[in-house]
Amino acid sequence: MTAAPPAPDLDALLDRVRQFVADECVPLEPLLLNHDYAALAEAMDEVRDKARADGLWNLALHADHGGAGLPLPEFGRVSEALGWSPLGHWATNGQAPDIGNMELLLAHATDAQRGQFLQPVLDGAARSCFAMTEPEHAGSNPTVMSTTARLAGAVPGGVAEGASGAGEWVLDGHKWFTTGFDGADWMVVMAVTDPEASVYKRASMVLVPTGADGVEHVRRLPVMGDEGAGWLSHSEIRLNGVRVPEGNLLGPRGGGFQLAQERLGPGRIHHCMRWIGVCERAIDLMCRRALAREIAPGRALAEQQAVRFWIAESRAETDAARLYVLDTAQAIERDGARAARAGVSAIKFTVAGTLGRVLDRAVQALGGLGVLDDTPLAFWFRHERAARIYDGPDEVHKGVVARQELKRYR
Amino acid sequence: MTAAPPAPDLDALLDRVRQFVADECVPLEPLLLNHDYAALAEAMDEVRDKARADGLWNLALHADHGGAGLPLPEFGRVSEALGWSPLGHWATNGQAPDIGNMELLLAHATDAQRGQFLQPVLDGAARSCFAMTEPEHAGSNPTVMSTTARLAGAVPGGVAEGASGAGEWVLDGHKWFTTGFDGADWMVVMAVTDPEASVYKRASMVLVPTGADGVEHVRRLPVMGDEGAGWLSHSEIRLNGVRVPEGNLLGPRGGGFQLAQERLGPGRIHHCMRWIGVCERAIDLMCRRALAREIAPGRALAEQQAVRFWIAESRAETDAARLYVLDTAQAIERDGARAARAGVSAIKFTVAGTLGRVLDRAVQALGGLGVLDDTPLAFWFRHERAARIYDGPDEVHKGVVARQELKRYR
Amino acid sequence: MTAAPPAPDLDALLDRVRQFVADECVPLEPLLLNHDYAALAEAMDEVRDKARADGLWNLALHADHGGAGLPLPEFGRVSEALGWSPLGHWATNGQAPDIGNMELLLAHATDAQRGQFLQPVLDGAARSCFAMTEPEHAGSNPTVMSTTARLAGAVPGGVAEGASGAGEWVLDGHKWFTTGFDGADWMVVMAVTDPEASVYKRASMVLVPTGADGVEHVRRLPVMGDEGAGWLSHSEIRLNGVRVPEGNLLGPRGGGFQLAQERLGPGRIHHCMRWIGVCERAIDLMCRRALAREIAPGRALAEQQAVRFWIAESRAETDAARLYVLDTAQAIERDGARAARAGVSAIKFTVAGTLGRVLDRAVQALGGLGVLDDTPLAFWFRHERAARIYDGPDEVHKGVVARQELKRYR
Amino acid sequence: MTAAPPAPDLDALLDRVRQFVADECVPLEPLLLNHDYAALAEAMDEVRDKARADGLWNLALHADHGGAGLPLPEFGRVSEALGWSPLGHWATNGQAPDIGNMELLLAHATDAQRGQFLQPVLDGAARSCFAMTEPEHAGSNPTVMSTTARLAGAVPGGVAEGASGAGEWVLDGHKWFTTGFDGADWMVVMAVTDPEASVYKRASMVLVPTGADGVEHVRRLPVMGDEGAGWLSHSEIRLNGVRVPEGNLLGPRGGGFQLAQERLGPGRIHHCMRWIGVCERAIDLMCRRALAREIAPGRALAEQQAVRFWIAESRAETDAARLYVLDTAQAIERDGARAARAGVSAIKFTVAGTLGRVLDRAVQALGGLGVLDDTPLAFWFRHERAARIYDGPDEVHKGVVARQELKRYR
Repeated sequence: MTAAPPAPDLDALLDRVRQFVADECVPLEPLLLNHDYAALAEAMDEVRDKARADGLWNLALHADHGGAGLPLPEFGRVSEALGWSPLGHWATNGQAPDIGNMELLLAHATDAQRGQFLQPVLDGAARSCFAMTEPEHAGSNPTVMSTTARLAGAVPGGVAEGASGAGEWVLDGHKWFTTGFDGADWMVVMAVTDPEASVYKRASMVLVPTGADGVEHVRRLPVMGDEGAGWLSHSEIRLNGVRVPEGNLLGPRGGGFQLAQERLGPGRIHHCMRWIGVCERAIDLMCRRALAREIAPGRALAEQQAVRFWIAESRAETDAARLYVLDTAQAIERDGARAARAGVSAIKFTVAGTLGRVLDRAVQALGGLGVLDDTPLAFWFRHERAARIYDGPDEVHKGVVARQELKRYR
Repeated sequence: MTAAPPAPDLDALLDRVRQFVADECVPLEPLLLNHDYAALAEAMDEVRDKARADGLWNLALHADHGGAGLPLPEFGRVSEALGWSPLGHWATNGQAPDIGNMELLLAHATDAQRGQFLQPVLDGAARSCFAMTEPEHAGSNPTVMSTTARLAGAVPGGVAEGASGAGEWVLDGHKWFTTGFDGADWMVVMAVTDPEASVYKRASMVLVPTGADGVEHVRRLPVMGDEGAGWLSHSEIRLNGVRVPEGNLLGPRGGGFQLAQERLGPGRIHHCMRWIGVCERAIDLMCRRALAREIAPGRALAEQQAVRFWIAESRAETDAARLYVLDTAQAIERDGARAARAGVSAIKFTVAGTLGRVLDRAVQALGGLGVLDDTPLAFWFRHERAARIYDGPDEVHKGVVARQELKRYR
Repeated sequence: MTAAPPAPDLDALLDRVRQFVADECVPLEPLLLNHDYAALAEAMDEVRDKARADGLWNLALHADHGGAGLPLPEFGRVSEALGWSPLGHWATNGQAPDIGNMELLLAHATDAQRGQFLQPVLDGAARSCFAMTEPEHAGSNPTVMSTTARLAGAVPGGVAEGASGAGEWVLDGHKWFTTGFDGADWMVVMAVTDPEASVYKRASMVLVPTGADGVEHVRRLPVMGDEGAGWLSHSEIRLNGVRVPEGNLLGPRGGGFQLAQERLGPGRIHHCMRWIGVCERAIDLMCRRALAREIAPGRALAEQQAVRFWIAESRAETDAARLYVLDTAQAIERDGARAARAGVSAIKFTVAGTLGRVLDRAVQALGGLGVLDDTPLAFWFRHERAARIYDGPDEVHKGVVARQELKRYR
Repeated sequence: MTAAPPAPDLDALLDRVRQFVADECVPLEPLLLNHDYAALAEAMDEVRDKARADGLWNLALHADHGGAGLPLPEFGRVSEALGWSPLGHWATNGQAPDIGNMELLLAHATDAQRGQFLQPVLDGAARSCFAMTEPEHAGSNPTVMSTTARLAGAVPGGVAEGASGAGEWVLDGHKWFTTGFDGADWMVVMAVTDPEASVYKRASMVLVPTGADGVEHVRRLPVMGDEGAGWLSHSEIRLNGVRVPEGNLLGPRGGGFQLAQERLGPGRIHHCMRWIGVCERAIDLMCRRALAREIAPGRALAEQQAVRFWIAESRAETDAARLYVLDTAQAIERDGARAARAGVSAIKFTVAGTLGRVLDRAVQALGGLGVLDDTPLAFWFRHERAARIYDGPDEVHKGVVARQELKRYR
């Protein structure tokens, strides 16, 4: 990017982050790529301690919660720097879905919820997850949901028995793609609490310990050949009459969709800038290989016009995509996520598309090495394919952008 | 674009420009689209008078030359607003190649040259052109050039007879794609003056009145079915022993490539932002048609998912492209065109590609109407195909970007 | 194509066709490209006489109508050979829309209709056109149509006054994209005759002399910058109470859509193979230029990897597309156009897409020359853009293919 | 495909193959997708016995070698039917690289080599592999190779000591992407035997038992997250002074490249048609999911225009690609692989590209399920990415096609 250099402080922070990722995360990548999850988790614990000690902890959060207190666009730059390695965000406690959950609880949790759920995650002593998508329903339409949470003894449509706060939520449902459930301490469950309400007022968020009775771990999903483990896994679970205190409701009853929407804006910046970081690493791997690999004695791969085009197109697309995300980050800060929602949707499919193309080019440039797990490319190639699917598939986001655009004419 | 709103002054200026283009230029488009060039030229004279009177003249230029004195990124925004109509730049005396020539002469012309050549163009009393590309040589490699300018009586490799300034340049050569030659008063001719010098020091720029003896107008080139007229044409010409005073040398001898390079940076911003303006108009035409056109009773074309995707993809690509150009404009202002040259190349192929895709989608959305000259779409579709060719084809610019990217690793 | 060589007779015929196109049509292309329509029409009259004398007349038609009597796939190969030049089909009386009209009348005309309308076109003494598309309705949905033809004195829903055959059809309506109306002798008009019938039984085809009272020529449409003339034009017309004898009904009343559908299958082969011929010419122009053009002293454009890729991709796409069309032609012959309709739709969007990409690559390879009318490339680039729109836009044909594919599962 | 129905015998055979794959292979896919390689190997042994018993063994081979004796295009159709499951070719002893090795030995092996090496593979009692690619050299240029095989005691450039046949080849080298090395009985090693010969005469093929002294199994390569096992793996190996009898030379000395080239033609048909089979399965999965998945109550995913376009584009691309491969198969049979080499290259990049796009669309259509190993889609998505790389990357094949095309003009 040719953009104006960042402010001195950010500049220095970015340098520190890049150095940290290069020194601490990149060397551990082989553990990840070889599925050596136990050794990885152990090594990452040390790296996380180091990050905490070095002041590189909770970079996404406000200063008064132990975070770096960066404005969203500046955090975006940090997220890009962390994205250089698949381990960067985890190392600094900025991994999804914890980061989204922390933001959610910072904004909406009661003091009791903060103490019980939020603080351990802020400290890195616990992990959390987010249970929303259901196997039976298209993720592209989150309003159709079968999981329910009812207040024990509630009279249908009337006042709940436990309205005093002494009741219990009883949850029943089936969720999948619950990232990091394996080993997590608690989860946010999206469930229908008010089936008679208008479509966008039916669901609420409930905090559920993963160890609660009735929480059934069906399986870690085998995603692109790998079921992973711990934070690096996605689970299918069932909630079989799970009971939690009434006070575990997060935010207002019926406010599930609104909270999910709020969670999305900054989360989108986080993800998109992480993808930009992935693109930068892919370009780096591509350039290095192109210069080092001989296709004939004395003739480097980099002399091939096709390879040069891949590099140039990747550079241009990545730089344009970065500016688009940062611009949207500014819009969110200035106008709020709701006002910026066309942009928030547009950057999703734009950057996910760029990511896919850059990774594809890099794989091709590396040839046989590109499909091997000797670099993180093949890992990203297969796992980031989901970027165009999760958090709303491209098709949904294009629909959002078109609707906003057409609205101007009505 | 969700970018921060422009500064109040720029905002007001942009509004005035948009209004002017809508009120004065759009109504004249049918004359252009129906090739009624004589009537168009006459009508445009009035519009240009109005622009001058309204303070919308020479918007690209510094305030002390009668221009708006806008920084490059802000001028970029103006250029976008003018690009809404194919007539916008012409209406405000910002049309290529005059705009590039004006900038060139403002930076490098002697006082005499300013008086004779620059001032009439600044005033809108004359038009100019730029003769560089030659039919015999690939435009992608401007260093190979056959047109020569020699000082009359010059001793090869030695001191020229006319070194005192009393000599004459004698030009011989063959040029094409000389935009606006037809009806222009003078041209900048790129010619080899120093064939023995190193490759990038061989050529110089010479100011040549189009009416000089030996300037032969071979033809207006038939471009995409239309040879146009006046400013709206591209000519093939021959220079047959054309003689101009030695003082017509523009800038230093052998400095032709350097001047051409300098001319390129701001010119690139101008063109790319104009293309962004074209994209905006295409999106506008697409949205209006999608809402107005029924594909079945009571069912608008806009309900087709394919059409919505075209709108969304066009919006996203256009917004990302705009930010990329504006960011490059800032880099040029901050660091100079040379330092920003990778970006200057990257925006060329990025925006030209976006332009092509957006126009193609809009044509498809409009269906039969899309190929008719009842809107400017078909005009742009065919004439802006050249955007990926002139000023260096995509392939050259990708090469520049790749070279810069790979340089970091050596 | 690596396909088995054609049968000896076809082989010899193809050689003759190619030679004829090269000798007689290619030299006249400059008249077309320079819009010198009068001179072109005159020269083409001679060429057509020659084609008739040489037995290259009506190649698409059955032997007993003076045609070559070729099976559809073999005619497809001939159509490709003719497609090398924009003038090939016209030269041999195989130009759309006459060719479709001739096939239609051969299959459905009464003896009287044959004598009056068909024979002069078979002989090349008259031209015809086809009036279907209406400005007010999306061409993508032909069932919505405003043009009406009523039998004079008809009782609504009852027996027409003129049922004896002595009545008159009275036509009212508005049509556009009526190719070749200018100078044509008659037209087939698609009109609603039975507004109360089921959707696909409402329209009929009526034969209307272009000189009939009430036929109003609104304008030759300005298509991609050019309104053309004669056969090379597309008109907007109005039918203002035009009266023709009852016997001018073509085929059964209410059978308009069925006839249009029938007309489509062989017409599709014709068009698609013509496009294949255009692709071959574009590849030829691209290869010749790539070898002849130097990008540096002693270094041909053909050495650029990008250019080689364009050539290779164009060759592969064109060969695959040709096989797809020929296979569909066989399916039409074997099973009928209706049974083959998924293929008939699939080849439309496949070949139109290939055509667009090949032309785009060729334009880019030729650079400045690619946008000039010094070759037919620019002509095709702009005019064949409509290939993705007319005869049903890509979007409609994709819908047809998907519906057929999904049907297997229900 | 709408192509003429196959001959009755082929038709019946295809039906049997499809049924066998559906009944025997598809049910075992979960073992593959869950990496349960031991159980899979055991189950596949039974399936292979059944195939042998049912006359579905060695379908690619000539009848007098216990094969089906099918012409290449007809075998292509069988290969497509087998490709429906990742296990189809293995089940019928048609898996690469054994199939290529069998063809090679049938054409070039001595009687002794047939008895020792070929027969056990024909019988399914042994597996083989092919060691060509080297980590140190770009696979795109196979002429650069470091592995050597020298006749023990050979005088450089002169007659070898063991020329009588009593000598030994001593092999040294480093290979990777040796598919199925793990558990194979022997391999064909490509090695430089004549370093002073002209480039294409330097290498020879040598038969090497995998258990020979000095054959070092470095690792099963971790490919796209999975190192696999047995036939389903790709190894890195070293040859450290491995000695085999002189009689293990396969074909003529220095004939390695020619044999590799020969091996390629039919092998290309095999692979490309297998990919077509994969495309068909992907379309099937996409259609079924589109019909079964609700995106809103009562509204199937199949009603989305985007999904319909993916289905239609996949159908059209797959059908065109199939015809292209079959046409090339005919050309190989008619004219030989050498004469057909442009086609043999063109189908490689064409079908690999189609495969990639079809799989990508199917993954997107399936959404979350698309990235899970609950269907074979995700397996193919990640492992068939290599289709654009192995056997020569797209870039090499495009170069071959362009060279042939341009040759016509010189």
